[in-house]
Amino acid sequence: MKIFAKDKVVFNFSKTNQPVYFVEPGETFWVETDDCYSGQIKTETVLRPDIDISIMDCSVGPIAVSGAEPGDVLCVEVLAIQLAEQGVMVTSPGLGVLGEKITEAHTKIIPIKNGFAEFNEKIRLPLTPMIGVLGVAPAEGSVHCAVPGDHGSNMDTKLIKVGSKVYLPVFVSGANLALGDLHACMGDGELSGTGIETAGRVCLQVEVIKDRKLARPMLETPDAVYTLASRADIQEAIQTAVHDMVEFLMLKKELDFADAYRLLSAACDIQISQLVNDNITVRVKAPKLDLQLESVF
Amino acid sequence: MKIFAKDKVVFNFSKTNQPVYFVEPGETFWVETDDCYSGQIKTETVLRPDIDISIMDCSVGPIAVSGAEPGDVLCVEVLAIQLAEQGVMVTSPGLGVLGEKITEAHTKIIPIKNGFAEFNEKIRLPLTPMIGVLGVAPAEGSVHCAVPGDHGSNMDTKLIKVGSKVYLPVFVSGANLALGDLHACMGDGELSGTGIETAGRVCLQVEVIKDRKLARPMLETPDAVYTLASRADIQEAIQTAVHDMVEFLMLKKELDFADAYRLLSAACDIQISQLVNDNITVRVKAPKLDLQLESVF
Repeated sequence: MKIFAKDKVVFNFSKTNQPVYFVEPGETFWVETDDCYSGQIKTETVLRPDIDISIMDCSVGPIAVSGAEPGDVLCVEVLAIQLAEQGVMVTSPGLGVLGEKITEAHTKIIPIKNGFAEFNEKIRLPLTPMIGVLGVAPAEGSVHCAVPGDHGSNMDTKLIKVGSKVYLPVFVSGANLALGDLHACMGDGELSGTGIETAGRVCLQVEVIKDRKLARPMLETPDAVYTLASRADIQEAIQTAVHDMVEFLMLKKELDFADAYRLLSAACDIQISQLVNDNITVRVKAPKLDLQLESVF
Repeated sequence: MKIFAKDKVVFNFSKTNQPVYFVEPGETFWVETDDCYSGQIKTETVLRPDIDISIMDCSVGPIAVSGAEPGDVLCVEVLAIQLAEQGVMVTSPGLGVLGEKITEAHTKIIPIKNGFAEFNEKIRLPLTPMIGVLGVAPAEGSVHCAVPGDHGSNMDTKLIKVGSKVYLPVFVSGANLALGDLHACMGDGELSGTGIETAGRVCLQVEVIKDRKLARPMLETPDAVYTLASRADIQEAIQTAVHDMVEFLMLKKELDFADAYRLLSAACDIQISQLVNDNITVRVKAPKLDLQLESVF
């Protein structure tokens, strides 16, 4: 099985980035990644303001998927996530939802052992390993890896975990997938501005879906289907994700707009993935069992 | 056991409303309620613009709880919810997150049978019975029952269901609890502007907690503890609920601000209760098992 090393990275998603790794549809492969700080914070003496921010939020790739063409859909299934032996959580003035209450920078190193993150001597958190950045080259322009969008990227969605499938629109030949920014634990919102940031490696399998259209990422877990939208304005993100789910329900359940809108209100949940990046990411959850949905496509 | 009839209602929460029902701490009682339209929509020929909006969003009560004094906390446990035999979902121009896409009013009557809401001949939704409006008299002023706030009221939180405890600040002698607006089903967000609106009756047990302070509602389910905040601006609602949870974690887990803030980010979720009332309601979830939290108090 191929293992893609973490020394080949991009700091932005762009159609001008040339692929460095190559896979076939149906192929299973490993991707090694550094943490979101490119490994600059290994001890508690290194503070967030001390590091070189020009090498933050790197993503391993681009990985070209054979046969993926603009207008197709790329399905990325997460088969395994292996974490490093420690993670880091920084606080720094301005960071996160209550950033104005932070008066000084501080770094906490958190050991990762036996399935837990050892937050302190009393508190051990069960690991919830997830991929923070996962995206493809966008149709136009160059988007920093810190910023999520219709091409995916830094969606910081805790459901991008083992057992999930992420569906992404393909904008360029090969799709040019890249990923990184693993978290050992993160709650919805990423409220302090970071998860437990860590290095590690990820096992993925990719498929190319032809003759289907997708404007933005969707996500599928064993029990639900999600639309995702990332926008600078939270209201716009919510309206976009809700609009996408209503369109999805109209198609899948053969409903008119009014009935799909009501069904959404009765059975689907609006959820927040993250509130702390330049674009906010929200999602709408449609439960498979209640709505008799088998899959996204 | 006392049964409080649905003919005694308030249309606002105010300390000037005199209690009409009376209970003791520890007492279990039933409250009968009409739906949020005061039963005006019984058939699909009645549209949302046709009804008298001055009698919408009524709440049964006020119910005075013996011994509850300003500065105490009222705990309301939901023991049972029984629903009527049908619910209603209206659509109307402007209603809900995609309200601008609605061109004409339309009413759908949804039978409630055998544990399901029969949305149409193909789609049956499992019931998720919940209380939309539950609150106490506020410290000052008169607040319409449609508007949620620090006194509770129209929080439209689907977790206010059987097995949950709602903690409310007490602002007046007797607390003056009132409730209504049952939903047979509703997803987080109440995205089209309504749940499946229905009449029914609710079995509650109340307790008065002395020597504890609470600024805003909190909620407890078998597996989690929540802070709730309702504000006109979603960002302010989020910041308030997050602030409250950080303070709660500092107290319960004996942490400084920075560690409580990080613990929140790693293990707690920001969630949306509803996006469609005059004040938006959000909540922060702290999982009991992961954080070894036994209860709110």
